[in-house]
Amino acid sequence: MGVITLLTDFGHRDNYAGVMKGVIAGISPSSQVVDLNHGIQPQAILAARFNLLTSYGYFPADTIHVVVVDPGVGTGRAAIAAQVLTAAGVQTVVAPDNGILTGFSMLRAVALTNPEYWRTPQLSHTFHGRDLFAPVAAHLANGVELDALGPPLEVSSLVRLNISDAIATAHGYRGSIQYIDHFGNLITNIPAELLADRAWRMQLGEHTVPYAKTYGEQAVGMALALIGSHGYGEIAVNGGSAAQVLQANIGDPVAIRWRSGGPSDAPHG
Amino acid sequence: MGVITLLTDFGHRDNYAGVMKGVIAGISPSSQVVDLNHGIQPQAILAARFNLLTSYGYFPADTIHVVVVDPGVGTGRAAIAAQVLTAAGVQTVVAPDNGILTGFSMLRAVALTNPEYWRTPQLSHTFHGRDLFAPVAAHLANGVELDALGPPLEVSSLVRLNISDAIATAHGYRGSIQYIDHFGNLITNIPAELLADRAWRMQLGEHTVPYAKTYGEQAVGMALALIGSHGYGEIAVNGGSAAQVLQANIGDPVAIRWRSGGPSDAPHG
Amino acid sequence: MGVITLLTDFGHRDNYAGVMKGVIAGISPSSQVVDLNHGIQPQAILAARFNLLTSYGYFPADTIHVVVVDPGVGTGRAAIAAQVLTAAGVQTVVAPDNGILTGFSMLRAVALTNPEYWRTPQLSHTFHGRDLFAPVAAHLANGVELDALGPPLEVSSLVRLNISDAIATAHGYRGSIQYIDHFGNLITNIPAELLADRAWRMQLGEHTVPYAKTYGEQAVGMALALIGSHGYGEIAVNGGSAAQVLQANIGDPVAIRWRSGGPSDAPHG
Repeated sequence: MGVITLLTDFGHRDNYAGVMKGVIAGISPSSQVVDLNHGIQPQAILAARFNLLTSYGYFPADTIHVVVVDPGVGTGRAAIAAQVLTAAGVQTVVAPDNGILTGFSMLRAVALTNPEYWRTPQLSHTFHGRDLFAPVAAHLANGVELDALGPPLEVSSLVRLNISDAIATAHGYRGSIQYIDHFGNLITNIPAELLADRAWRMQLGEHTVPYAKTYGEQAVGMALALIGSHGYGEIAVNGGSAAQVLQANIGDPVAIRWRSGGPSDAPHG
Repeated sequence: MGVITLLTDFGHRDNYAGVMKGVIAGISPSSQVVDLNHGIQPQAILAARFNLLTSYGYFPADTIHVVVVDPGVGTGRAAIAAQVLTAAGVQTVVAPDNGILTGFSMLRAVALTNPEYWRTPQLSHTFHGRDLFAPVAAHLANGVELDALGPPLEVSSLVRLNISDAIATAHGYRGSIQYIDHFGNLITNIPAELLADRAWRMQLGEHTVPYAKTYGEQAVGMALALIGSHGYGEIAVNGGSAAQVLQANIGDPVAIRWRSGGPSDAPHG
Repeated sequence: MGVITLLTDFGHRDNYAGVMKGVIAGISPSSQVVDLNHGIQPQAILAARFNLLTSYGYFPADTIHVVVVDPGVGTGRAAIAAQVLTAAGVQTVVAPDNGILTGFSMLRAVALTNPEYWRTPQLSHTFHGRDLFAPVAAHLANGVELDALGPPLEVSSLVRLNISDAIATAHGYRGSIQYIDHFGNLITNIPAELLADRAWRMQLGEHTVPYAKTYGEQAVGMALALIGSHGYGEIAVNGGSAAQVLQANIGDPVAIRWRSGGPSDAPHG
């Protein structure tokens, strides 16, 4: 019994995700379908990429991830399946070729051109999640080989998004907010590895946000900067929404500043 | 292992759908429960019907659909189970008798009056999803026969909703918007079959919306009319919400106008 | 195949619940994970307790409930697993020790200090749902004994919330609104058992709300008081939202007044 995850911008008011599960149940009834997230903002490919990148390592080897955030549906954009190397082993991602896998360790990829594994050779022009991606994932879960789905693609030829990385400065790092979650936590693009073992604070516009190990170390309603569970530097407000309190948005620049203090300043995790 | 789907107006802030799954797990632990949609507007029977009608053909034969959009709960309205013929074979719908199956191909129906298959003979006056519909669906999944659930009903005696159909005109069709999805797409009641193989455009109030095969054929922010994945004529805005851009609502009238142009005007899908 | 439920304030825009399911799938692939509710308001422990209290009796014996509404994550608050006695038999709750089990019949509890059953000995400071609660629940589903998870705790030593109970008065009961659901129904803290077999009406501020057995007994748009499916006195508006119509909030005081009338006034359910 394999795991198939669904990551879409379909929201929670319609039957789109449910219909994909119906298609999967018809082809691969013993597969376990997991909703990774259907709350991606419409057509927000960067947010979908962030969700997949910060999720897949927590799923078992051989998990199949279906990502349908697909503003180009029905146009000439390719549909792909790609094997990716994760902390948990090799997994497969089934998705439109729109940059969702930028920065992933891809082993190989194919174009999903073989209609034998589609739901119908007459694809809808607007819902490939139902007609192409869900059935392909179900067939993969049933043991169909990647190569049967279509011709191989050069991994280097796939669409890449322009992802801005954190940049080292004289006093720390410069970066930006790459994701804001439901709690209003501001997740930057500055990886945790760069922030370990030193004392720092974070600058966001006019706000200088002190480091804390956990939410509870700061007074309720006050901002703190910490290493978030996604593996990046993050700004939160204890008991509140940092996005609201600090009026912050995706893309806003942030800066890490090292502190010169001694051990009492250092992260103690 | 059978599939049981849930379609309700319970939203996503409460435990109602979760509790129904608990009841099902207790009776039929190997059934697979699929959330078809819990985001129906409170008591919006027409929207629930539309969701079921555009979903069930994508589920396997023998799927059991539980629909709980039930403004009449606790009153004299009947509770029914009905076998319906779908593209995928015979399926069963368990629901209040409030018109949800208007337009479906019903084979036979029974009234759910046998308390042996309820959760308890003392039904709650407000939550038959938990006390009646979920347990009945679970027993059906376990192999209980339809006839065991209660006496047969004449299919023609069930409640019917007044559904407005598209009407042929001298220049095309008149119809209306029957559903608006999460993306703001406007789904009309004009079936795709009526629109194939001819060139057309759609009129919505003052807006004349040109035909396109896919979202991407129109400029970002501009409206287009297409055959949507639900199987009806649909108005969308590329990269935006047609409901917002065109200020449209459910029930608004639309008109299809044939175009006299040659092949270059015709749908090319 | 056991059932594991998830009850969180993670909302529906992020990957948090999905990642917990990935962790569970890796440890206990045959467990069935049920979303009890992810729509708890951020850090609303009382609402989470109400959801669990009004749900667990509908799940099978041996169900494991994971509750992650955890404002104290990363601080010194304990993580616990507790066996509770329900109408359906013994179940287990895995949660932070923050009062979620106030009023439950707890049989025994342990502190989750054994890192052998965590996802990693290096817990995130902000996401114990992923690193601690989900893996512990999955190991319990696999048959790991409660005592293996850590040292026993005195049940009487666990955090208790200050829950206000209904109070008998000369003319009925005083209580308050403890929960407002998605439909705008106002659920009080006055148990159904206190309201059976007598005629009553409910006072909310200036509004005197008449008793009815079901929504449909009152005119559309009008308020009624009834025994709700959660097992408490409740105020609803037929076809509308009582919270909006009556401008009511959680914590607002209510009063039950007995009516002196004869049988025609009495609840007839």
